Amino acid sequence: MSRDRMEAFSDGVLAIVITIMVLKLKPPESISFSALKNNFPTFLAYVLSYLYVGIYWANHHHLIYMLESVSGRLLWKNLHWIFWMSLIPTGTEWLGLNPLKELPTLLYGIILFMCAISYNMLQREVIKISGQNSAIANSIGRDIKGKTSIICYGISIISSFFLPILSYIIYFVIALMWVVPDTRIEKANREI
Amino acid sequence: MSRDRMEAFSDGVLAIVITIMVLKLKPPESISFSALKNNFPTFLAYVLSYLYVGIYWANHHHLIYMLESVSGRLLWKNLHWIFWMSLIPTGTEWLGLNPLKELPTLLYGIILFMCAISYNMLQREVIKISGQNSAIANSIGRDIKGKTSIICYGISIISSFFLPILSYIIYFVIALMWVVPDTRIEKANREI
Amino acid sequence: MSRDRMEAFSDGVLAIVITIMVLKLKPPESISFSALKNNFPTFLAYVLSYLYVGIYWANHHHLIYMLESVSGRLLWKNLHWIFWMSLIPTGTEWLGLNPLKELPTLLYGIILFMCAISYNMLQREVIKISGQNSAIANSIGRDIKGKTSIICYGISIISSFFLPILSYIIYFVIALMWVVPDTRIEKANREI
Amino acid sequence: MSRDRMEAFSDGVLAIVITIMVLKLKPPESISFSALKNNFPTFLAYVLSYLYVGIYWANHHHLIYMLESVSGRLLWKNLHWIFWMSLIPTGTEWLGLNPLKELPTLLYGIILFMCAISYNMLQREVIKISGQNSAIANSIGRDIKGKTSIICYGISIISSFFLPILSYIIYFVIALMWVVPDTRIEKANREI
Repeated sequence: MSRDRMEAFSDGVLAIVITIMVLKLKPPESISFSALKNNFPTFLAYVLSYLYVGIYWANHHHLIYMLESVSGRLLWKNLHWIFWMSLIPTGTEWLGLNPLKELPTLLYGIILFMCAISYNMLQREVIKISGQNSAIANSIGRDIKGKTSIICYGISIISSFFLPILSYIIYFVIALMWVVPDTRIEKANREI
Repeated sequence: MSRDRMEAFSDGVLAIVITIMVLKLKPPESISFSALKNNFPTFLAYVLSYLYVGIYWANHHHLIYMLESVSGRLLWKNLHWIFWMSLIPTGTEWLGLNPLKELPTLLYGIILFMCAISYNMLQREVIKISGQNSAIANSIGRDIKGKTSIICYGISIISSFFLPILSYIIYFVIALMWVVPDTRIEKANREI
Repeated sequence: MSRDRMEAFSDGVLAIVITIMVLKLKPPESISFSALKNNFPTFLAYVLSYLYVGIYWANHHHLIYMLESVSGRLLWKNLHWIFWMSLIPTGTEWLGLNPLKELPTLLYGIILFMCAISYNMLQREVIKISGQNSAIANSIGRDIKGKTSIICYGISIISSFFLPILSYIIYFVIALMWVVPDTRIEKANREI
Repeated sequence: MSRDRMEAFSDGVLAIVITIMVLKLKPPESISFSALKNNFPTFLAYVLSYLYVGIYWANHHHLIYMLESVSGRLLWKNLHWIFWMSLIPTGTEWLGLNPLKELPTLLYGIILFMCAISYNMLQREVIKISGQNSAIANSIGRDIKGKTSIICYGISIISSFFLPILSYIIYFVIALMWVVPDTRIEKANREI
């Protein structure tokens, strides 16, 4: 019961995060192809953030799926993660309005970095509750993909000062690396 | 369980898509009938998009209803479809602000076209999971209505360059064709 | 199952309708009591519409509670009702920005009138599905309160041309008449 | 069943309250650290309000968890509480735009005060329904934390006229006092 409600609340916020980004997708200012083209960076930033929210949503789904109960600590770790997720729309908007500029690229990288860190903390709490030998702990394993992502976000934060385009590439590559849903967990789910 | 969450997330986004469109329904700028009249194209565009979201919501409801489990692939096909649905508010706003102009009509047509294509992909994935002889596969059958719609959106995309009004008529006619809910599926549901 | 999803979707939209109205509650333009006072009509319009959404939400809750299944027709009657509900934020904003002006008062009255009409149609569909002797049909009875409201909205539409303040009074009186939840239905629910 | 829907509606509104605050987090106006710094008070106000919504959400979760049925009165007490919660985004925006100014600090304090009062009324209704010897009544006990908060909000309202910074400190201290979820209730839940 309890888990359902945490799921519902998380889904609610994630759904709204996506649609706030839509809300910030302003229609072109005039009726011409060049005006449409000016909107393109904003559109790309939207696609990127949509992918990230989709990835987190699917993985959160797998992570929470096997939980039986929810503790107060877990609720707050979840709220902490949602906090950083909730900053994505503003980061996306700034990125889309100022393509290839250092500061917006930096801020976006920091937000993604903190999302990953707080998700990692949430994941650890879930493992702590479920036990080190639980199916969920085994399926996450050493979480190489998660840790690699965190390191890559760190690199993209540094590169945003010198070479914003490299940060962009990192953001897209990590996203694509995750779009394939966390098959390890899914497999574990199936075995149960 | 899993299906419930995909439903909840989809419903959340669709509900917000509708209300983002409401948010963009600005009140008239002055207190006169002529100001109200200026808002009329925006209102009509809202009615049209509301119908489309309603149609998709009802059909998605029927489509997902009989599923027993959800795979990672299905989650992503669903997210893909939601992505295109999430572009409807921006398309609607541009259409409402520039009635009978070529580019907004074109963009709106492309969005509807991609919604239909991605819904078709989602539908195929559901059939693949449920089996070719499942109730849902039989009820969808050859999906003549869906394929006709896709072709009509293609025509409306072309006609938007020459005769935007024809595209509008196509959009409304397809909507009306779908408002009658997918009775084939509903019948199949009842038989189970 | 089916009913749950219709409920979830309705709740989603109603929750967002409330919060879109919040979104339009702009903070005062300067830091003074007079600026706060200028926001007062907007605040009052918000309170009024909040009451209406609350009333409809509670009554919809009672109405749907006893349903066992949902037909395609019912889904569309529900969507029709939600359509009119979704216009409340725009009507509220215009009302709050132009207190005691004829046209905004008129538009607000028309929206409330159509909400009541479409709710009545939804109610009839529920009775049709449940049967004339069902608990829900008995608890609604002749629905004198609902019909009185529709007539009063009609009067307020007419009075908005001559005496907007009278329309305001009618809106508030009807709201207060409904805040007491539909005890007839609640009683019937309890007996089951 | 009934309780689920009240939960769903409350969660929906709370989720949207959080994200409306996100929506009002505008990206910096230019691409410079000083522009980012100008956004800092708005960001801090967002963090504070995020904490409050998180606290209320977690406590509401505990409060409602043990309820078996929902009365019409409870629905309206819940709607009353949500009403005050729904004013948080506007209060937060004004606070963030005008740091250390008297009136916005005052308004924010009044909103928090009314949230606490209406939550207290909701809590009493829950106790009334569940009985004085129920687990929930015992776990709430004399609610010293809740009453202390109400008194502190009262003090912060007064101090906002003379020393806004003191009000800010009070807001943050109360928030931190609550972040530790209501362990008394959680313990009681576990015993059941």
